[in-house]
Parts: sequence; C-alpha cells; structure tokens
Amino acid sequence: MSPTKKAGILGATGTVGQRFILLLANHPQFVIHALGASSRSAGKTYKEAAKWKQSSPIPEHVRGIVVRPCVAEEFKDCDVVFSGLDADVAGDIEMAFLKSDLVVFSNAKNYRRDPTVPLIVPTVNTDHFTIIPHQRSLHSLRKGFLVTNANCSTTGLVVPLKALQDAFGPFTTIVVHTMQAISGAGYPGVPSLDIMDNVVPFISGEEEKMEWETLKILGSLDQTSTSFAPLTQTRVSATCNRVPVIDGHTESVSLSFARRPPPSPADVTRVLAEYTCEAQELRCHSAPRRAIIVTEDDDRPQPRLDRDSEGGQTVTVGRVRTCNVFDIKFTLLVHNTVLGAAGSSVLNAEVAVAKELI
Amino acid sequence: MSPTKKAGILGATGTVGQRFILLLANHPQFVIHALGASSRSAGKTYKEAAKWKQSSPIPEHVRGIVVRPCVAEEFKDCDVVFSGLDADVAGDIEMAFLKSDLVVFSNAKNYRRDPTVPLIVPTVNTDHFTIIPHQRSLHSLRKGFLVTNANCSTTGLVVPLKALQDAFGPFTTIVVHTMQAISGAGYPGVPSLDIMDNVVPFISGEEEKMEWETLKILGSLDQTSTSFAPLTQTRVSATCNRVPVIDGHTESVSLSFARRPPPSPADVTRVLAEYTCEAQELRCHSAPRRAIIVTEDDDRPQPRLDRDSEGGQTVTVGRVRTCNVFDIKFTLLVHNTVLGAAGSSVLNAEVAVAKELI
Amino acid sequence: MSPTKKAGILGATGTVGQRFILLLANHPQFVIHALGASSRSAGKTYKEAAKWKQSSPIPEHVRGIVVRPCVAEEFKDCDVVFSGLDADVAGDIEMAFLKSDLVVFSNAKNYRRDPTVPLIVPTVNTDHFTIIPHQRSLHSLRKGFLVTNANCSTTGLVVPLKALQDAFGPFTTIVVHTMQAISGAGYPGVPSLDIMDNVVPFISGEEEKMEWETLKILGSLDQTSTSFAPLTQTRVSATCNRVPVIDGHTESVSLSFARRPPPSPADVTRVLAEYTCEAQELRCHSAPRRAIIVTEDDDRPQPRLDRDSEGGQTVTVGRVRTCNVFDIKFTLLVHNTVLGAAGSSVLNAEVAVAKELI
Amino acid sequence: MSPTKKAGILGATGTVGQRFILLLANHPQFVIHALGASSRSAGKTYKEAAKWKQSSPIPEHVRGIVVRPCVAEEFKDCDVVFSGLDADVAGDIEMAFLKSDLVVFSNAKNYRRDPTVPLIVPTVNTDHFTIIPHQRSLHSLRKGFLVTNANCSTTGLVVPLKALQDAFGPFTTIVVHTMQAISGAGYPGVPSLDIMDNVVPFISGEEEKMEWETLKILGSLDQTSTSFAPLTQTRVSATCNRVPVIDGHTESVSLSFARRPPPSPADVTRVLAEYTCEAQELRCHSAPRRAIIVTEDDDRPQPRLDRDSEGGQTVTVGRVRTCNVFDIKFTLLVHNTVLGAAGSSVLNAEVAVAKELI
Repeated sequence: MSPTKKAGILGATGTVGQRFILLLANHPQFVIHALGASSRSAGKTYKEAAKWKQSSPIPEHVRGIVVRPCVAEEFKDCDVVFSGLDADVAGDIEMAFLKSDLVVFSNAKNYRRDPTVPLIVPTVNTDHFTIIPHQRSLHSLRKGFLVTNANCSTTGLVVPLKALQDAFGPFTTIVVHTMQAISGAGYPGVPSLDIMDNVVPFISGEEEKMEWETLKILGSLDQTSTSFAPLTQTRVSATCNRVPVIDGHTESVSLSFARRPPPSPADVTRVLAEYTCEAQELRCHSAPRRAIIVTEDDDRPQPRLDRDSEGGQTVTVGRVRTCNVFDIKFTLLVHNTVLGAAGSSVLNAEVAVAKELI
Repeated sequence: MSPTKKAGILGATGTVGQRFILLLANHPQFVIHALGASSRSAGKTYKEAAKWKQSSPIPEHVRGIVVRPCVAEEFKDCDVVFSGLDADVAGDIEMAFLKSDLVVFSNAKNYRRDPTVPLIVPTVNTDHFTIIPHQRSLHSLRKGFLVTNANCSTTGLVVPLKALQDAFGPFTTIVVHTMQAISGAGYPGVPSLDIMDNVVPFISGEEEKMEWETLKILGSLDQTSTSFAPLTQTRVSATCNRVPVIDGHTESVSLSFARRPPPSPADVTRVLAEYTCEAQELRCHSAPRRAIIVTEDDDRPQPRLDRDSEGGQTVTVGRVRTCNVFDIKFTLLVHNTVLGAAGSSVLNAEVAVAKELI
Repeated sequence: MSPTKKAGILGATGTVGQRFILLLANHPQFVIHALGASSRSAGKTYKEAAKWKQSSPIPEHVRGIVVRPCVAEEFKDCDVVFSGLDADVAGDIEMAFLKSDLVVFSNAKNYRRDPTVPLIVPTVNTDHFTIIPHQRSLHSLRKGFLVTNANCSTTGLVVPLKALQDAFGPFTTIVVHTMQAISGAGYPGVPSLDIMDNVVPFISGEEEKMEWETLKILGSLDQTSTSFAPLTQTRVSATCNRVPVIDGHTESVSLSFARRPPPSPADVTRVLAEYTCEAQELRCHSAPRRAIIVTEDDDRPQPRLDRDSEGGQTVTVGRVRTCNVFDIKFTLLVHNTVLGAAGSSVLNAEVAVAKELI
Repeated sequence: MSPTKKAGILGATGTVGQRFILLLANHPQFVIHALGASSRSAGKTYKEAAKWKQSSPIPEHVRGIVVRPCVAEEFKDCDVVFSGLDADVAGDIEMAFLKSDLVVFSNAKNYRRDPTVPLIVPTVNTDHFTIIPHQRSLHSLRKGFLVTNANCSTTGLVVPLKALQDAFGPFTTIVVHTMQAISGAGYPGVPSLDIMDNVVPFISGEEEKMEWETLKILGSLDQTSTSFAPLTQTRVSATCNRVPVIDGHTESVSLSFARRPPPSPADVTRVLAEYTCEAQELRCHSAPRRAIIVTEDDDRPQPRLDRDSEGGQTVTVGRVRTCNVFDIKFTLLVHNTVLGAAGSSVLNAEVAVAKELI
C-alpha cells in the first residue's frame, strides 16, 4: 500500500517538527508533502534549514524538500497538516489554516482551552472527535478542523488515569510530581550550564497545564456533542521539575478514589495491564500493542531503559503500591517527544482517518 | 585556640568518612586522632588505604595516619568517635564502642529506632540530648553515649517542618517526593550505566526511613526524659528517586496543618526565613548562620547552585505556594553528605560539647 | 528462511552478552540455542539471572532459557559459540571449548596475541581467516576454531586506516587519542561518582592494546598462511580517556604516510567514502551498507547522533584536514558495544559461514 | 589593609564577568567599583541584571551596584578595568577605554595578535609586561595600557611548556588534544541537547588560537622591548573537543625537544614539580603556592577532583611518560574560568601593581 494522504509539517525545523518527520518518513498512510518553517528557513532545502538533532539521519527523500513559509495558501494541497509551531506564532497561523479549510493537528498549547477544540490523547479520549462536526459548522468548514494534543507531562498522566477511571470511577484527588527531560524544552532549549549535575524545580506554566488539561481530557462531551464537561469533583496538584535526562518524563502519581473501599494495588495493576483503547481497536498504524506496560521490576520504569518501548507510544507504569496519605501511588514514564508530542498528533490523525474525518 | 578533643573516625575510607575528615581537618575543637577501617585497610597509611573522591585533597596531616581496625580498644584514647560505618557492620561495632564507655556519633541507621538512642538533626531537635543520662544509666556508663543522625533525605525535610510546627502547630499530612544525588549511595555506589541520562525511581528502604524518622525527630521526649513520643496524628508519605546529580537532595514537599485556617504562603515564608535553632544560640562552630535560606528566585533551590550555601549546613527552601490538594507546597534542598550525613554528626558533637556531655 | 545454525553465548548475562542476545534475537542464520554464565547464574532462567540494562527488552523467547554453566560439554550441540566472557575466566574456558572442537568467536583479549589465532575486525581483515586450517591442524580439530575480535577502540581506528593503507600505502606514524564511553567498562563498571562532570584520563592496559593490535590487524599473513606478519615500519601512540558518554567511542587520529607527497584531505575523504570490504561483497546480514560514513557537517561525528548509523556496524569519520605536524588528521566514531564488541563477532561469524568454515 | 585600587568590570553579567566578581569580592588590593554591561542591563542593579550561575551567591555588596553602560567616560574613576566582554563588542570598547588612558586587562581575543599588546599568562610570561612603555608611547598614554590573557586551553598548555622550555630548551613539535568544559562557551552557551551523553569534536576557531598563541607566549621580546618574537622552529597541532564537564579543561600533550637525547619522564616530572614563576616571587595575592602540581595517581588529573586546587590558579599534570612517536606525553588540567580566564587577568593585574605599572 502506498501512502495516499499528503501531509504538511509546520515548524518542521524544530524539535517537534523533526520528530514528525521521523514518524511520517515511512508511514503507510501519510506522505511528507510540504514542510513549513520561519521566513529565515523558507526557500532553503530542509538539509540546509534544519539543525538536525535526532539520532537517526534526515530521511533521504526529505533532505532536498524546499521549506515553505507557514502560510495557508502554500499548504492547500495537503490532506492534513501537523503543527509543531511554537506557541508565540501558533495561534495566528493555525487559525488561518483552519479558516482555509485545512485539517490541523497541533502540538501547540494555544487552542487547547478552546471550548470547541478537542484536546485528545490518542490512547485516552478519541471519543472527543465527536465535536468536530460542531466545530466545522461554527467555522463554516467543509473538511477542515483543528485538533490539539496535550502537554507532554499531562499525556503521560492521563493514560493510566483513564484506565483507572473507567474501572473504578472518579478520583477525588490526583497529586503528580514530574521529573522532565530536557528535550521537552526544544532546541537550543535548556542550557547545559543549567542542568548538568543539577535539577531545576520549575518549568514555567507547566503545573497549571497539567492541572487543568487533565480535567478536560478525563471529562466528557455533553449529549449534543457541542461542548466539553471537564471533571469538577477532582482536585489536581502538580509539581514539575527538569532533570538531566534527554528523553522521557518520569512522574510519581498519588491518587484517591471516590469509591470506598478503594481498589487494591493488585486491582490497579490488573486494570492497567489490561487496558485497551479505541486506537488499538481501529488497528491504527502507530497504536501501541500495549497502551500501558506494567513493569515487573521494582526499580522501573526508568527513562533510558523504557522510553522506547512500543515505539514510544506507550506509558510504562511501575511501583504500584498503597500510600500513607492517599489510596494508591505509582510511577509512570512517557516518551515526551513521541506519545507526549508528535506521536500523539500522528496517532490522532490515524484515528481521524479511520473515523473518516480526513 | 588549639583543638582539645581527640576524635576518631570509623569507616574513615568511605564516602562519609572522607567527609568527616574534611569537616574535622581544621576544626577548632576536635583533632583527628584515629582512623578506623576494615581489616583490609588497617595497618596502611590513610593515603594508601583510601580511594579519595573529594574535590579538595586529603589534608596533609591525615595522609600518613596509620589506619586502625575498628575495635574499641584501639580508640580508647578518643574523646569522641564519629562513625561512617556501613549498616552491615555498624551494629556490632558501635555497640561495642558504647559498652567501652566511648562517645559515638553515628551516621548509620542501626540504632536510630532504639528507644533510648536519640535521632538528632542538629538544627532541629538537640533537646533530645536530654535522654543521654537515662541511656548512660541503662548501660552503666560514666561518659560514653550513642547519638545517631538521620537519613540524608529526612534531615532536609525536618528542618523546615520543625520551623513550621513550632509556629503553626502539628501537621495532619506530609507528602514528600525526593530527587536524590548519587553521593548518597557511597562509593562505588551507583553504576554510571544506571544513572546517566536516567532516573531510578526506587531507593531500597529509603521511603520507610523518611516516613518514620520524621515522626521521631519531630516528636518529643516524655517528662522524665526516658522515652520518646513520636508524632501519632501525622501521616507521612514519601517517594524517593535517584537522579544524575552529584551532591544535594532536592525534595518537593506538600503539607496540611491541623490548624484552620492554615498559614498563608507569606506566613510560611516568613517563619522559615526567621527560624533559628539551639546550635546557633550555642554559637557552635559548624552551625549555619541561617538554618534555613528562603530563595528569592522562582527556579531555585537548585543542587548545583545552592548545596554549598552555609558550608552545606543549611536547608534552602523555595517555591512556597498554595496547593490544590494540601495547604502549602514548597521545594527544599539539602547537602546530603554535609548536613545530611557527616555534617550532622559533627554539629551534634559540637552541641554535646556545649552542653558539657563530652 | 529460518535460522539453521545453533548459537551459544558465553558470559550471556554481562554487557557484551546482552548485546549478543539483541544482535542474534532475530538473526536469519543463527538461533540462540544456549546461554552460559557463571555458576551463580547457571540453573536460573535468563530473566532471573540477568540484570538487563539494554533499552530494548529481553527478547521474549530468551527470557525463559535456562542458563548453563560455561563448560564445553553443555555446548556440544552448538554450531557456533560467541564469548563475551571476562578476561579473568575467558582463557581457560575458551581453550577448553576449542579443544572440544567447537567454533568460538571471542570478544576477550586472552588469545588476541596468539600467533595462530586471527584478530579480525570484520570490515577490515577477513582475509586473516585463511590461518584457520593451520590452527585446526595444530590442535587436531575437525571443525572447531577460535577467532578473536579486537578491542573496541582499536576496532574503530583500523577501519579507516585499512581504507587508507589500501589506497596510499603504509603509514610511518599513527597518533590516536580516544574519548571512550562508559559502556566499554561493562556493568557495574564505572562508578557514577567517577565520571559525572568528569573525565578519567586513564584506562588500564588500553593504550598498549591499541598500539599492538593495530599492527597485527593491518599486517598480513605469510604466504603459507601459517603465521602473521604485523607491521614493523609504523609507530603507533595511543592516549585513552573515559568520558561521560553512554555508548560510542570518539577518536582523534593523526597520520603520516610513507608516500611523498602524501594524499590530500580530498583524496583521503574520497577513499574513505568509497571503501568497501569483503563482508559487504559476501552480502553478510550484519554488514553495514557503508563500512565508513564520511560526515558532511564539521561538528560531527558525535556519539549520541552517529553511533547507531548502519545499526552500529559502521565507522563515522569527520573533520578530515591537514595537520601542522603530520600529514592528515580526522575524528572518528565507533559504536563500542556493536562493531567494537559483539557486532564484530557476529559479523565475523557470518563471514565464516559465507566462507564455509562453519 | 583595605583595598586601594578601584576596579571596573566590563561584561559583568556574563560568565567571565561573574568570575571576576567572585575573584575580586574580597581582594586585598582591588575593590569592585563599577560594573559595565550592555544597554539592556545598564541602569538596573546587578542582582536584577545578572542571571547568576555561580555556586556561591552574589557578594552582598555587589547585589545593589547599578550597572553602567560600557563607555569609557563612566569608568574614568577606575584604576583598572577588567574586560569579560564578548569578542563581537570587545574590539571597539576596549580600544576606546585604552585611548581614554585607562588600564585594561582583557579576556577577549580581539587584541591578542596585536604586535604591541602583550598576551600574558601570569604564571608564564610576565616578562612581556616590558612592552608597556612602548605601547603607551605609541598611543600617547600617561598611565593606561592594554594587556590580554590567553585562550583558556592555551593557558593550560603553556604553563608546563614554559617550565620545560626553560629547563630543556626549545620544542620541535607540540601536539595537544583537548577535552573542554561547557563553561568555556559562556551562558547560555552549549545547549544541553548538544552535550549530554555526547562529545562535540569541534570548537570554532579554537584550534587555530591554541596553535599561534602558544608561539607568542613562549616567544620573547626583542632587545628594545618594542616587539615580540614568536617561536618559529616549533610546529603545534591542536585538536579541540567539547565534553560534558562543567569546569576544567583536560589536555593530552605530546612533545619533542630539539635537544638530543631528550629529557626522561623523571627529568620532566622533576622540572614540572619544581617550577616557580615571577608572580610567586612577587608574592602576588592570587599566585598559586604551586604553579604546577604533579599528581601521584596514574588516573589523574581529573576535572572534578583537581580543578579547584590552589584556588583554580594552578595547572595539574599527570601521566608523564614516554611516547612511541614523540619524546614525552602527559595529561594536564586547567580551570578554564579561573586561570584560563578571569583568574589570569586578576593575577596579571596584581603583577602589574607589583611592577608599579598601576
């Protein structure tokens, strides 16, 4: 089968853009058709324009593609556009693309809070795609729409939470503490003098994002599929840290459930290990075989050893145990630039194709 | 003033032992008199026996000291003995030293739970020294006694907690999440293949230690000064991780107080910044000028930048703020091999001298 | 095609052994049949016995294999045995295996200097296999033989040297300076306290190995194929350092040729880029598509970005330029645990199969 | 003695500027009087303007100093000005300061090649100060002059070379290979994504600097003290790499001497250990007790363990041994931001005071 959908990538020279290129380079459904970047890069070949920082080389057929400016007119021939744009420019550009009736999967934060834009983690809440008809009607679009994916840290968190919420009902409290990789800050990103032999206990805006995104993603759509109902009975507290790790966010999670008695660690472990999602049922190309992996060893997950499992599209969970203060605590790991960023958008797009939205 | 108290160091070739040597090398009260290590090292000069891993060289007068075996008879002429022994040998050796009427300040975990052995963080609970007469009478000692210091992570935690408990009364819940330096595991300790570009979300026994030690240290002595009354109304949950940092444990702390309404972040900040302790009042040589430093910048404390403040004997606190789940959260940093280990023992000994126990 | 040769792996739980497992897990010719380790591990399943440190999981069918002791009798049914044994035990065990008429590909240093054992880097000197008939006759073997591969640092060095020697004739001087990854020291190997924020300018025995191995590998066999003639007109000086890199040895090389005038940087670049070797001509499964990759960018090769090129079986060369003291200097990178260790043995074995020695 | 010379610091908010502040904060001769930075910082207090990255805090009396723009008029009242300016602005500013009859000690590269500006490493060639009268007369200055210090890597190299040249006469060849710390690139400097788990085998312009600076520093002044005579009979080849180390450049050096027979390793070791320089004889405050430390252990020097010896103003040398290609090889370590940058300028200024040039 040769790929049939033409894909554009915005912010193609950046860290997330580079991941989009790797994920789409040999994709069975999407073919990299157009690359967009700043005016500084436009007109150059991709090889000239990009400071490539991936451990596998630029795919051969991408090297010579001439970079386009990020204007909708230049991407008219794309069936789908993936945006790895920075937040400072993503707002205007993505809206212009949407209004030009283009399909946009965005990794930027700008429209995540928009009441008509779904915030989708592909192994969690692909049912939120049902708002698309409403979104189209609002903007008088025929085929275009805009879907965002979540912050990298939120993404790792909501996968096991969704499994547990489905099985055991709502949470009263969620406390999460992250140890985040440097690649989450892009390139040049974190100066080495700031992070070698060090921890930075602050990432601007990150804790707020985790706290509200979780409520939207784990929430539901109303019955008319025209608005979202975020969780209201759950309190979330996030603490975010940067650590000297290249890829892979590690998160310690503590939970209490509304249900009494709460599930035991064995219950939680079983539910996590057995969790499956719609993207798997739809047999999407990038869907992980296991949406959640529960580790056997008590010193796992570890970013260096576990981040590449299932091509980076899974969440690895370990150390499920009782907590002196809450019901349950555990540790999880998510690959922040795969499932936590570009990988979410790509899998979201595959789901959209399966749902015949593209 | 030339130093007048002869000090012995057990486990002198290990990581904690090396710190003891640096801290005592130019001490105004203690002079390094005897060094003890395993039979493999005994009989060699210290320079020959030790694999020195500190960033300042072995003090000149220590290089040629001939290492002794760790038997009490060999340390009879010491006024005080500091133990940096590993837990697998510390139990028997320290008890033998105590029974020989020697004064022992131990960094090992073996006797921390003993109901007659105080567990003292020198900027927190030096009032626990009042159990010493009772301890002596139990063992029929004239001048000897045994004092332990706390686990490195616990030590960092209890300093701000003590300040807050003194000001605002008891806690209902304490949740702490650590990012601990590799030096806490000694030498050779953590293999580089385990920690470079990685986080290890498990340190054997560490979470349990933090959970109960906190209750003993923040607890009180009964009125007869013959037994400890650990806190009973406070729940503590600890999660411990190893991160690629050389020295300095970073800890995220969330707290709820029994008192309603709880103190505000401004109240907490003020109380922390103003905290003083008995070791300061006694003008002990190694007492920090400030027992707690509250940082101005919102991305601090950071281990590389803050661990050496006040010679490593302070705790640096930052990001004091409200929490969606608890009353208050903040981040702290402690130098794990100074205040968190050898530095506690040395300052404890200084307090004991000031209290005329030595 | 299903694999037809039964492979045994000695030292299977160690770092090199783990690489052998990954390289052979889906091999078209070899099937993992037997795993050998110390008596401490023998009798356990591989999952129980091994402290697995690779970033991809233990292959499913290997987890349950019961580890055997490293005695020849237990490996009689293997067509080929790969040895990742430590040098302190490899000598006796490998000789016993050889005398039992087994085929052994060893990563250990013990027999590299043996005048009848070839020291083969698979993309360099597979013509040295022609000594095997002589080796067999000496030991009265029917099908067994012993082949060693080179030290990891030597391996990276000799690949471009071979290309240049073939094109431009002999060298008068070779100066090499290494920056070696921690994985080269095995597990637990380098303590993190020794290498974080640090360089260790000494690796025991490494410089000597690089200096003599290079001469044997680049040398020739005599006409009767019964003895090796190492280079005698070339002086080699090696300086070896350990740096905080997980995988991938970086080496700076300076060369002078006997030929006057010497080749230009452009000549050298062209010859390196065009180099091909016998393993490629024989279409061996693990042979790299390009035995040498010459980088375009002047800040490459870099271990994190280039070590996985061609599955780790290539050598990447960059910064080819003239030298104020010698004729030419350049920088190279080799994946120390793939081509520099297990990958050499596996590719050597594939060549041996192609040559009908197995 | 209270300090009597008023010191200005240009580029005060940068990495080198921060080191100047730490080195001058408690200096017996110089008092920090004026701080200069870009127009973006001018007018703010130093605490507001600087992104402080040192492991000891901003000195109390410096926090509130209002930063000035880098114009000579603003520094008229300074007895000496230390420049940590970047090369892109240092040229014009330093020349303007010189022409305003100010005394400038510059860490920038701009005037190092100037035939009337001395390039001084304070433990090597303080005799080059004798060109100052000629420099003053050229610019018609009464008290002002301009002195540069060398590149950080060159600085480490020339200290042992000077000792050996004094004792054994000229070199025919010098080959040096560096492993340089990230702090050498300033802040934000090296992105963490470029250097974690990595080596970058290229530092723009660095090799050329090492190759010619060495010749000027080890060269002499002509008899009239009006021009420099760099070495002409010595070939220098430098290879420069960036490694994941925070502070401290490690360099492998190979040498051949003109004299036959060459000195033995024992000769070299003795001469290095006994070396003393004029800054020591003049009893300058920042002069190291030992200008060169020869290590006892064969795995030293190491940046983390040796960089702070003698306050960072020494060069540590180890592994002195014969070389298969040259006469001698050894490894050295220099603290790149102390002796390799700000520390050189400060000690140079102390020498100038002792020589009554200030």
